[in-house]
Amino acid sequence: METESHNNPQERPTPSSNGRASREDNHLLIKAVKDEKIELVQQLLERGADVNFQEEWGWSPLHNAVQVGREDIVDLLLSHGADPCLRKKNGATPFIIAGIVGDVKLLKLLLPKVADVNECDVNGFTAFMEAAVYGQVEALRFLYNNGAEVNLHRKTVEDQERIKKGGATALMDAAEGGHVEVVEILLHEMGADVNARDNRGRNALVYALLNSDVEKVKAIIRLLLDCKVDVNVRGEGRKTPLILAVEKKSLDLVQMLLEQTAIEINDTDSEGKTALLLAVELKLKKIAQLLCLKGASTKCGDLVTIAKRNYDSDLAKFLRQHGAVEDVRPPDKAWKPQSSRWGEALKHLRRISRPMIGKLKIFIDKDYKIADTSEGGIYLGFYEEQEVAVKRFSEGSTRGQNEVSCLQSNRANSHVVTFYGSERDGGCLYVCLALCEHTLEKHLADRRGEAVQNKEDEFARNVLSSLFKAVEELHLSGYTHQDLQPQNILIDSKNAACLADFDESIKGTGDPQEIKRDLEVDESVMKKMNAFYEKRKQNKTYQNKTYQNKTYQNTVGDLLRFIRNLGEHIDEQKNTKMKSKIGEPSQYFQEKFPDLVMYVYKKLQNTEFAKHFPKISTRTKPTCDGIGGGEQAGQP
Amino acid sequence: METESHNNPQERPTPSSNGRASREDNHLLIKAVKDEKIELVQQLLERGADVNFQEEWGWSPLHNAVQVGREDIVDLLLSHGADPCLRKKNGATPFIIAGIVGDVKLLKLLLPKVADVNECDVNGFTAFMEAAVYGQVEALRFLYNNGAEVNLHRKTVEDQERIKKGGATALMDAAEGGHVEVVEILLHEMGADVNARDNRGRNALVYALLNSDVEKVKAIIRLLLDCKVDVNVRGEGRKTPLILAVEKKSLDLVQMLLEQTAIEINDTDSEGKTALLLAVELKLKKIAQLLCLKGASTKCGDLVTIAKRNYDSDLAKFLRQHGAVEDVRPPDKAWKPQSSRWGEALKHLRRISRPMIGKLKIFIDKDYKIADTSEGGIYLGFYEEQEVAVKRFSEGSTRGQNEVSCLQSNRANSHVVTFYGSERDGGCLYVCLALCEHTLEKHLADRRGEAVQNKEDEFARNVLSSLFKAVEELHLSGYTHQDLQPQNILIDSKNAACLADFDESIKGTGDPQEIKRDLEVDESVMKKMNAFYEKRKQNKTYQNKTYQNKTYQNTVGDLLRFIRNLGEHIDEQKNTKMKSKIGEPSQYFQEKFPDLVMYVYKKLQNTEFAKHFPKISTRTKPTCDGIGGGEQAGQP
Repeated sequence: METESHNNPQERPTPSSNGRASREDNHLLIKAVKDEKIELVQQLLERGADVNFQEEWGWSPLHNAVQVGREDIVDLLLSHGADPCLRKKNGATPFIIAGIVGDVKLLKLLLPKVADVNECDVNGFTAFMEAAVYGQVEALRFLYNNGAEVNLHRKTVEDQERIKKGGATALMDAAEGGHVEVVEILLHEMGADVNARDNRGRNALVYALLNSDVEKVKAIIRLLLDCKVDVNVRGEGRKTPLILAVEKKSLDLVQMLLEQTAIEINDTDSEGKTALLLAVELKLKKIAQLLCLKGASTKCGDLVTIAKRNYDSDLAKFLRQHGAVEDVRPPDKAWKPQSSRWGEALKHLRRISRPMIGKLKIFIDKDYKIADTSEGGIYLGFYEEQEVAVKRFSEGSTRGQNEVSCLQSNRANSHVVTFYGSERDGGCLYVCLALCEHTLEKHLADRRGEAVQNKEDEFARNVLSSLFKAVEELHLSGYTHQDLQPQNILIDSKNAACLADFDESIKGTGDPQEIKRDLEVDESVMKKMNAFYEKRKQNKTYQNKTYQNKTYQNTVGDLLRFIRNLGEHIDEQKNTKMKSKIGEPSQYFQEKFPDLVMYVYKKLQNTEFAKHFPKISTRTKPTCDGIGGGEQAGQP
Repeated sequence: METESHNNPQERPTPSSNGRASREDNHLLIKAVKDEKIELVQQLLERGADVNFQEEWGWSPLHNAVQVGREDIVDLLLSHGADPCLRKKNGATPFIIAGIVGDVKLLKLLLPKVADVNECDVNGFTAFMEAAVYGQVEALRFLYNNGAEVNLHRKTVEDQERIKKGGATALMDAAEGGHVEVVEILLHEMGADVNARDNRGRNALVYALLNSDVEKVKAIIRLLLDCKVDVNVRGEGRKTPLILAVEKKSLDLVQMLLEQTAIEINDTDSEGKTALLLAVELKLKKIAQLLCLKGASTKCGDLVTIAKRNYDSDLAKFLRQHGAVEDVRPPDKAWKPQSSRWGEALKHLRRISRPMIGKLKIFIDKDYKIADTSEGGIYLGFYEEQEVAVKRFSEGSTRGQNEVSCLQSNRANSHVVTFYGSERDGGCLYVCLALCEHTLEKHLADRRGEAVQNKEDEFARNVLSSLFKAVEELHLSGYTHQDLQPQNILIDSKNAACLADFDESIKGTGDPQEIKRDLEVDESVMKKMNAFYEKRKQNKTYQNKTYQNKTYQNTVGDLLRFIRNLGEHIDEQKNTKMKSKIGEPSQYFQEKFPDLVMYVYKKLQNTEFAKHFPKISTRTKPTCDGIGGGEQAGQP
């Protein structure tokens, strides 16, 4: 149905073909409410749009009308049968939203229609609590005068209660929000319980300290202290209000709390730190001195050394006068490094004091340097207390972004160097990786003179296999490495190989040319690999010249395809598309490390193997007899 | 040599046996200087302690004497031949340290002895810069009057320069330190260049905004603006001073910057965000309004939606009046989830707006819930934009700590579920893991009715093999799982198995009893595994009853030992000790999943395999003929 009352043709609803309201009209109705176009709302309602339609998150036209604060639209919707009890997906009714926006007229309008002034959403928020959260003084008073329960604790869903969420009151909300007037009203006019606790045992004092505006925090804490709030409660990380005040770097706040006779000045947080230790660490001389003067124990860590490290000799002296002694930290004899090559440096790095960069401990010093790079070098470090190699980039570096992006997308690729995490600080990007013993380049160089041993044979095959899988999975994740070289293949303490150095990698567009780039190897690599395997060629066991015969190449190709199929974990359906993109990885490697391939082939050509894998041998029919080995028995 | 001048016997140096100064005396000398015990210093020097001895970090007695600010001790050391040019490991001389402590008497004493008033450490810090860093006004003036170069840029080492570290000046140091008086003196008395840039292109204005004390920042920025500092520079993340001022939530600072005619109000940071967008995101209504009134473009993101999400209808209206329009974000059609099971929910989660918890995007809502746990449940999430499963714990939970500790220590274990990272927020711990399709329990339940296929056989063997390796590596890292069950083994989209759920794991003390606990399986698991493999027993191919004969157990043991040896990557030397601790993992599994073991054995008993691995077959002599399969050809 159309009306002629509306002048803007763009805002006139187009009639649906059957003359009845369509689903599209319902969306238009919600949009019209959001846009506060009351006439369009009316038109849509009159032609039958569903007044109780709920969008994705459960928002109905009435919820939206309340949010934009339009009493006239709310009236209109109610007169067209809007249900005032409809709940959004999070359980909030229009009445609760009216508490958020703090509109007393709307609250008045809706109050007679709701079952209970204390109705709450799934997280237990009532209209009264929301008014406290958003600092809506008038709404707070209206709700209070109409029976809202001031000291109600939030009741939340089971999953949340299991991790001790919930249980907060309106006073805590107002304190966290920094709403001084609301806190004052709640305490002095409405009888709010100053010592109510949430499910984690926190009271309004702890909540007040969550706000970032120190002036508001001071005003609210003054109010709470006047009402005898308990000062010996704990926040996150078992921090006391005193510790939280130190972290806020506010001498006034610390002073206010220290005036309380009940304060436990030496209480520690979950890391065992006292307020005084934190003050010294944070270079807060005046606060540290105040704490000492108020009787804080100086037996709470190596205060003197920390003060000296910060070049604050005055504070160091002061602390000594108050009984602090300089500790010498004994080396941690129980701890053993995993890396043998970097063991001594790691022991040293572990012992020294360093400011943490997020989860990373590092010291940019030549004693801890692993290698040079084109940017900031590779250094030893500890990430979450695990030994790591840390590659540094400048913050905006494209190489750094490539490296991190590729590693983030390939965390589950077990043939790519394990990515621990990254940190950013002072314009630097720190990429933390599993610490390996050598690069393949170094490994080959070190062993150039050695005789061929069985162990070494396994190693060569292992490298080939790992590279196969690493590159294949990398391509499946959409990345191309673009810099496959022996110095970018790492060897860990178990002699396992993994692929590293993704700072030249690119996220593909699916263009086969991009992936092909992974197959161009510069000549130097070829040379190195040749030099290494030349030894084997000279060994009389391998002096069968047939492997240099081109006619064998197809056979080797079959063999490699066979190896690849062994390692194949990828769902075939999904794989079809990628296969056509990548082509035959076996062939890539054949081109890339021809002597390695030849070598593996020679070692294995006399084994009888294929018959154990009937499915695959039927498929690929290798002309060689088979291949030995198997890390994971059970995956033909 | 002993003297009788000292009264405290505890502080008298013990004579060394040969009458000459020992290395111990050198350490005692440094300690005596630190303790400011001048008489003891003198005694040690007189009996021959090395006046130029340098401790671990290169600290000499003279460095220490300067740090504690004792002119008399400095004099004494110099008279005993202390070298005033000795450098600490970081290149700092006693003169530079005198700049840090700001002691003019010491500077005067040392100045005639140094080569250059502008001598610097390896990072390019001069005494003058250090005086600026530490706000030492008198030292600054003294050094200036004695020829210190005011506008020297720091020259640092090559590794640091490559990532654009270095290049800062004393003015920047004073600005960052919040030393208002120093900034004023540098600008007005010493001719500091207000627009000097460091190697990243940052000037003193950007440095000033690094300080956390807003009042000091305001005072310094006032001084800099009065000297016509360039306001269109960039800090970390390409943030402009205006953006940094918004992040500081300071209306005054924003106002000061907006008064500059040259300001580029719409400049974006490296994430493409303008000052206005940040102000709206940070719920800074007054700042957002001021920016609009000063002409900031409202075409910089979905401002209206963000304001509405924060329930600030006023601001939303204001923004609309200034040309902001409500965007509807189109779904990202290019993005495809990797998980098929969770694909739809992931698409939805990716599209919606959520506040980030560090690197994690999550929404605690039943639509994104994967499973219940004894604590906070497991939910879908994106960690660094990768799809993950997120296990929630309450912050102080022992289970949560176990889980994270074990995962952190086993990142490189490729048979343990890949650990992405953890976040803490609002009293919750979020543990982010690779998203798998099913648990083994569910997988077995779903397939209970299916006929035995080749694919399924591989799968069974794969599970066994992965479990082997996962638990073995776990034990090597010192952890025991303590809750090995099919519901704690995950199956990914490639049907690979990995071990998960470490919230009952313990870090071992090396007690074999602890590890043994991993072998106690409750009965229900046995039952489940039995139920699954019962199918196979009923299959006529496997109706040879011999596998239930106890006499075969040893053979199976050998077989499993053989499988284990295939996968063995561990250095044998290192392994010896652990082996005795762990015992035979093969036997553990045999006890744990007897039917699985039997099944594998049956499948493989007819293969001829052992002869391909002469080394191993000689060692373990399996009575079975061999075993098939091999994920990584090349690792016998």
